[in-house]
Amino acid sequence: MTGCLTIAGLGPGSSDHITPAVEQAIAVATDVVGYIRYVARIAPRDGLVLHPSDNRVEADRARHALDMAAAGRRVLVVSSGDPGVFAMAAAVYEVLETDPTRWQDVDITVLPGITAMLAAAARVGAPLGHDFCVINLSDNLKPWAMIEQRLRLALQADFAMAFYNPRSKSRPEGFRKTMQILKSFGEGNRPVIFARAVSTPDESIMIVPLAEAQPDMADMQTVVLVGSSQTRTLSHKGAVLAYTPRSVKG
Amino acid sequence: MTGCLTIAGLGPGSSDHITPAVEQAIAVATDVVGYIRYVARIAPRDGLVLHPSDNRVEADRARHALDMAAAGRRVLVVSSGDPGVFAMAAAVYEVLETDPTRWQDVDITVLPGITAMLAAAARVGAPLGHDFCVINLSDNLKPWAMIEQRLRLALQADFAMAFYNPRSKSRPEGFRKTMQILKSFGEGNRPVIFARAVSTPDESIMIVPLAEAQPDMADMQTVVLVGSSQTRTLSHKGAVLAYTPRSVKG
Repeated sequence: MTGCLTIAGLGPGSSDHITPAVEQAIAVATDVVGYIRYVARIAPRDGLVLHPSDNRVEADRARHALDMAAAGRRVLVVSSGDPGVFAMAAAVYEVLETDPTRWQDVDITVLPGITAMLAAAARVGAPLGHDFCVINLSDNLKPWAMIEQRLRLALQADFAMAFYNPRSKSRPEGFRKTMQILKSFGEGNRPVIFARAVSTPDESIMIVPLAEAQPDMADMQTVVLVGSSQTRTLSHKGAVLAYTPRSVKG
Repeated sequence: MTGCLTIAGLGPGSSDHITPAVEQAIAVATDVVGYIRYVARIAPRDGLVLHPSDNRVEADRARHALDMAAAGRRVLVVSSGDPGVFAMAAAVYEVLETDPTRWQDVDITVLPGITAMLAAAARVGAPLGHDFCVINLSDNLKPWAMIEQRLRLALQADFAMAFYNPRSKSRPEGFRKTMQILKSFGEGNRPVIFARAVSTPDESIMIVPLAEAQPDMADMQTVVLVGSSQTRTLSHKGAVLAYTPRSVKG
């Protein structure tokens, strides 16, 4: 009997942000596959096998999950946030295309989750309330020149921006260059939001004007939001908030 | 006693995609404020007052909600999808800024939801698995020229794109022009996804090559996703799927 593969988003951290659809998929899974930190969020129970793996092995993980599903298991692949945003859903389809007949009978379902940028935006107001773009700043899987060109075009388009994977120990330079490009555009007042581990006990959030933003304010657990030229900050009940108005005058 | 204002996202349609945080906010609200169609998703109960209003009155609605909260009510403002993406969160902060002292004691919380583009992407694979941008195609609140410039820059940047509010009865021309701009870029094969009323009984989803995409495939209930030059389609178990690979070769 062929099993099934569900690719689900666990949201930013708190179980308060996991959808019922995803909770149900967790409840019926026989196997959970994913990066160590995300599999650790699944409560162990009888009959459930956890398969944590390291990062940078997404293709192996996807193949393993597809093979188990083809062998009859009910496999759940977990990502944090949303599985379709820089996460496991694309990895599964990449692998599926390498050998479609091998997994032709596997039912595949993707269940959306609250992605980090939306959780971060909600915490600070509504910085993504107008047009925006979403860029993975890691150059592990694409040339740095492409990232830099996208940043410049996004500035020209006056998009607000959300950056995933802004900075890691092995990639300290990219985010420094990103900050330089943003600052060279000449608007030091637009707010930059560093949101780390939103909705977890380790949550920390900073809003600073671009001119004061420093590369070491971000790490791999941080999503960074950058306002457009229209994004405003305000103080409310002692907190700094940021929002991008819906309107732009003609 | 001052009350509180919660701005919550009801997700794309099905209650399977409403987070526990939002369900809890619904359970404790005394008043629910929002567009008629979204307030209609809240089950009536004793002690809960529903305040449905028409669209295009977002500022009035926000003011009403803030005033009720200042008067001691537990007010819930509902949006479909996520309240921070082209929805009520920005409208509330815009209004708040017009008279900050009037509402200075109101606790404001934003609760994220599954926004339409993520629900749509999950249904068809992983078209937003690489860098992308998100554009509201309505020119009610911004000049059309700005939309057109953003489209051209997004094409240059080779972003996948998500379009909200692509087309309405009063704005039939914008989406026709959008399709023309996309087609003039010369890549007729990139997939275009028309996803309507995702996760509701009225759900309909179409994936067509850009060359075959027609303006009347979209209406106000549709979110439109457009692949980048890298987005691929595949057939799996009789369905057409689309995904954007994580990697781009240097």
